[in-house]
Amino acid sequence: MKYAVKIEVSLKPGHSNPEGETTMQLLTELGYNVEAVDVSKVYTVFLEASTVVEVETKAQEMCKRLFANPTKDNYTINVAERK
Amino acid sequence: MKYAVKIEVSLKPGHSNPEGETTMQLLTELGYNVEAVDVSKVYTVFLEASTVVEVETKAQEMCKRLFANPTKDNYTINVAERK
Repeated sequence: MKYAVKIEVSLKPGHSNPEGETTMQLLTELGYNVEAVDVSKVYTVFLEASTVVEVETKAQEMCKRLFANPTKDNYTINVAERK
Repeated sequence: MKYAVKIEVSLKPGHSNPEGETTMQLLTELGYNVEAVDVSKVYTVFLEASTVVEVETKAQEMCKRLFANPTKDNYTINVAERK
C-alpha cells in the first residue's frame, strides 16, 4: 500500500520563536493588527508499507531521529492512504 | 471575536524542492525507503475580527502581500474561532 504521512513540527509553548516574531512585525508594518504568529513546518513523506500501524511506527521513529528536537519541538503525525 | 488562521504555503508541483530532496536523502541514509518528501510551512496568525469572512479576506491579502510567491507557491487557508 502507498501512504503519505504528514508530520507537523512546531515549537513547544514558551520557546523563543524569532521567525514568528519577525513575521508578526512585518504584518504590523503592512497595517495588520495581529496578536501573535506561530510558525511550523510540515514534512509530507511518501512511502510504501503494509499497514497504517507500520507507517505510524516509522513516522514516530523519523521524528525522534531526524525531524524533531525533543527539547523544543512538538510534533503531530497524520497518515493517509494514496493511490 | 478571536480567530486563529492557519496558512499553509507549499511549493507548486514541478518546482525545485532542495529541502525535500535533502530530507529524503537523510531518511535514505537512516535506512528508510521513501519515494519523496514535500516540505511546506504553516503560519498560524492570531487576530481579532468581526466575522470569518473578514479573517479569510485578510488572510488572502496576507498571502499575496507576504507569505506566498505566486510564481512558485500554493497556499491554503483555514480559519478557526478561539476563546
